[in-house]
Amino acid sequence: MTNPRRRGLLIVYTGTGKGKTTAALGTAFRALGYGWKVCMVQFIKGTWKYGEMKSIAAYGEQFELHPLGVGFYKILDDDQPEEVHREAAAKAVDLVIEKLESAEYDLVIADELSVAYDIELIDDTAIHRILEARPTHIHLIVTGRGAPEFLIEAADMVTEMREIKHPYQQGIKAQPGIDY
Amino acid sequence: MTNPRRRGLLIVYTGTGKGKTTAALGTAFRALGYGWKVCMVQFIKGTWKYGEMKSIAAYGEQFELHPLGVGFYKILDDDQPEEVHREAAAKAVDLVIEKLESAEYDLVIADELSVAYDIELIDDTAIHRILEARPTHIHLIVTGRGAPEFLIEAADMVTEMREIKHPYQQGIKAQPGIDY
Repeated sequence: MTNPRRRGLLIVYTGTGKGKTTAALGTAFRALGYGWKVCMVQFIKGTWKYGEMKSIAAYGEQFELHPLGVGFYKILDDDQPEEVHREAAAKAVDLVIEKLESAEYDLVIADELSVAYDIELIDDTAIHRILEARPTHIHLIVTGRGAPEFLIEAADMVTEMREIKHPYQQGIKAQPGIDY
Repeated sequence: MTNPRRRGLLIVYTGTGKGKTTAALGTAFRALGYGWKVCMVQFIKGTWKYGEMKSIAAYGEQFELHPLGVGFYKILDDDQPEEVHREAAAKAVDLVIEKLESAEYDLVIADELSVAYDIELIDDTAIHRILEARPTHIHLIVTGRGAPEFLIEAADMVTEMREIKHPYQQGIKAQPGIDY
């Protein structure tokens, strides 16, 4: 049971630097310590994050993960039609709304929602629907580069992750446990 | 046992925005999913973070937390002499070095180390000693605003968390589960 007397925050992690989803996970980690229920819906990355999946699974019903993205869009060896990504994103929007409206979670994370908007898989209306669906006592974190101005406007807390140095610039490959 | 064939990363989260320690915690959360051992030494905040302490405690020996700071320095109702903070910071430096040299951890987090440097509780030498003590296969995360240029230079990955909007600007108090 969530606490309807709490003032929930709308938190946005955006920018091109690393640490956005990671900060959302860190917030979840802290929240789990309070016995909160957490739900994370992933819009873009569908298949990768093995490390976090294992950690999340260890919490059982306390931490629900829904990886709804169908892989990386238009990068790597993605050969799926745009329509497939669009449908996946629409499903993710509906699921976030369903989870918010259920009021069964203390913290809901819409992971890479801003990216889905930025690459035009979803439009303004989808984000407005999410914001309107949120009971005000539930914390909502939205991650992803390219957070739209109206989302920033609506948020209580916004951090831009600026990339100062990226390991791939240094010729270092993605590292298990660190990157995924 | 750590894996000496791995290439460890030096990761720096800096800037004035929220999400630095939180991103470090998120990285730890992911790493724990791989069964890694994690050690976090806190330089500044010594007493607050109840939520993360509970989460960390649940991992037993897999996640060691050493809150060595003696509270917030020169803010809130801090009335401790500077020397007390300086000694605490020196102890934290020694502990980070000891933990790195033990090579018993896959990931070491020096939380708010950059702040301790920024407010001159420790100097360049202390940070250089830490960097030199790190076995190259161990991941090290340094958080805190004011990361010095030479640390950024040495790092593999640096993200600056920029504050776009802070909840306290909106007149919202720190929230359990979110802020601490």
